[in-house]
Amino acid sequence: MTGKAIRLDLGDRSYDVQVGSGTLDQIGDFVASLGSVRQVAVISDSNVAPLYGVRAVESIKHSGLEATLIEFPAGEANKTMATFSHLLDSTFAITPAVDRGLVVVAVGGGVTGDMSGYVAASVLRGVRWVQCPTTLLADVDASVGGKTGINHPSGKNLIGAFHQPAGVLIDAETLKTLPPAELSDGLAESVKHGVIRDEGLLTFLEANAQAILACQSDVMVELIARNVEIKASVVSADERESGVRAHLNFGHTIGHAIETLEGYGTISHGQGVALGMVAAMELAVMRKLVTSDAAGRIEALLTSLNLPVKRQGLDSQEIWRIMQHDKKVRNGKVRMVLPTKLGAVDIFDDITAEEVFEAVQCLETV
Amino acid sequence: MTGKAIRLDLGDRSYDVQVGSGTLDQIGDFVASLGSVRQVAVISDSNVAPLYGVRAVESIKHSGLEATLIEFPAGEANKTMATFSHLLDSTFAITPAVDRGLVVVAVGGGVTGDMSGYVAASVLRGVRWVQCPTTLLADVDASVGGKTGINHPSGKNLIGAFHQPAGVLIDAETLKTLPPAELSDGLAESVKHGVIRDEGLLTFLEANAQAILACQSDVMVELIARNVEIKASVVSADERESGVRAHLNFGHTIGHAIETLEGYGTISHGQGVALGMVAAMELAVMRKLVTSDAAGRIEALLTSLNLPVKRQGLDSQEIWRIMQHDKKVRNGKVRMVLPTKLGAVDIFDDITAEEVFEAVQCLETV
Repeated sequence: MTGKAIRLDLGDRSYDVQVGSGTLDQIGDFVASLGSVRQVAVISDSNVAPLYGVRAVESIKHSGLEATLIEFPAGEANKTMATFSHLLDSTFAITPAVDRGLVVVAVGGGVTGDMSGYVAASVLRGVRWVQCPTTLLADVDASVGGKTGINHPSGKNLIGAFHQPAGVLIDAETLKTLPPAELSDGLAESVKHGVIRDEGLLTFLEANAQAILACQSDVMVELIARNVEIKASVVSADERESGVRAHLNFGHTIGHAIETLEGYGTISHGQGVALGMVAAMELAVMRKLVTSDAAGRIEALLTSLNLPVKRQGLDSQEIWRIMQHDKKVRNGKVRMVLPTKLGAVDIFDDITAEEVFEAVQCLETV
Repeated sequence: MTGKAIRLDLGDRSYDVQVGSGTLDQIGDFVASLGSVRQVAVISDSNVAPLYGVRAVESIKHSGLEATLIEFPAGEANKTMATFSHLLDSTFAITPAVDRGLVVVAVGGGVTGDMSGYVAASVLRGVRWVQCPTTLLADVDASVGGKTGINHPSGKNLIGAFHQPAGVLIDAETLKTLPPAELSDGLAESVKHGVIRDEGLLTFLEANAQAILACQSDVMVELIARNVEIKASVVSADERESGVRAHLNFGHTIGHAIETLEGYGTISHGQGVALGMVAAMELAVMRKLVTSDAAGRIEALLTSLNLPVKRQGLDSQEIWRIMQHDKKVRNGKVRMVLPTKLGAVDIFDDITAEEVFEAVQCLETV
């Protein structure tokens, strides 16, 4: 297989993330190589199933295995208990009846990955699961970490399980059919990875912005592999040192609050995170943790990747109120991840309302 | 706390099973001792909630914690996705909103334990869970092992998770309100534990059958503790040596087939297991693994504990067919756990239809 492989070192739950071009057609051989496979359930949404779900099923059948395509209506609004229940019903409708030799294959974006992972975690108390992410956000974020789940009317991702995949196959070619806005969602996380761990990745993004927006294959393979390595190092470290994983929240505290304030769907997750990162950089400048040049560099990079750095009419009082109700808040203290330089962050639990007001103000200043 | 404590040694998921009289009123202190507890959801069914659910809530409030009683309609028929969803809705309806400081407390039998454990495993991808079993079957079986889940129309326990409790508190006094038939369900598992690991437990059961059927407290505490120790040793060993846990299937292969054949509800699980054990003993006698005296001893013990050893009109062809579709069947081979002497078992994967026909025949011979 051409491309790159990143090893996730998680003891007896270790697995490889393979990144390449055209890897989707090798899913059959990969699943067959897992051994003792009796049935394969390919889960895909109504947008991705006709494009890539069908191709995955063909590849799996070509490798001599039984495969069933299970489809659900696309969209975050369908990441519900009702859809989860439908996916389980469809899985148990497979004949002959599924047993521990079942492998669940997710072909799609984050919603598909989260839900199919929860299905794999729950069927017979856990069967093997393979991820084929088809969005940049899923490639660089959801493909590592084993977080699975569904939404509840009370909040996002409130129901789920930790379930590590048996393997992840990323095909950079699938990004060529991705709407530009969804590409930007992934790029926001990529900038985040650069800020928290790897200034070199920021340089790479700056140098290749045009090729990235055009989804040039070799550049995308390199980009995805570098991001997976960073996410993997954070997740692996967190198995030993609890708390490091929180670094991945950089840009997400104010970002989530902006998403909640504006209403999900009004702005994308990537746009929220981009604005959250700009605000967090400003807050770090105020604390003299980083220079205003560093903050300016991140703003310029986000702009070159078609991500927003300004937003008018934000209610900073309301943002602060939402931040205080974030599920990550402990003992009433608002915590934020802030850079100490480009490529390194720390967690600060003494964030004040005034700092947040001032940082949000910067998002309005043109 | 008077009584006995058995340590479950599972690395960083280790916990204690405490067995005593009146332990239910100490649940509050126990939950408080876990630390960082913000809310407690007590889950109980419509039969047990008025008796013991309310008492658990009182004990928890007495220890200065917030507690909410969540009730669901009693019965195996309600161990469904719909009830699971209702329990999640009720959990997320708790105010202030639940966070990782939530502790789920199960007060009830196996259905309550299985469902509340799956709720605890799923809320925020896993919160702490405490079990207060109130049936003998739950005491000696479900309280150890971390198996949680719900039924699906396609089969029992097909959906779930492995989730170890933070602790188990068993109050032998609660057995005094248990219907005799449900007591027998637990006694069938106790006989099983004796056959697979501890001939001394068989002697204890023989010597105390009357006191046990009368639920005499000191005898019940001793009985439960001995059974928990055996189940714990099997589950702990299986963390290292995969497959030993299968020994717990003794009596369950033919037993489950009889339950399926007769229809769930027609005969109890304990009655099915008792018949399954008698048939398995006969099969072991045929293979000259044990003497017919040993088989006779088990039959006499089951009878003294009000468990059946005979059943007329069983369709042995149909039993064999059901056994071949058991979810534990691998590569089409029917496996059974058989005693090699009283107190020791082995797994045999060369079971033939003829042997099963003959063993089932013995259940009909008066």
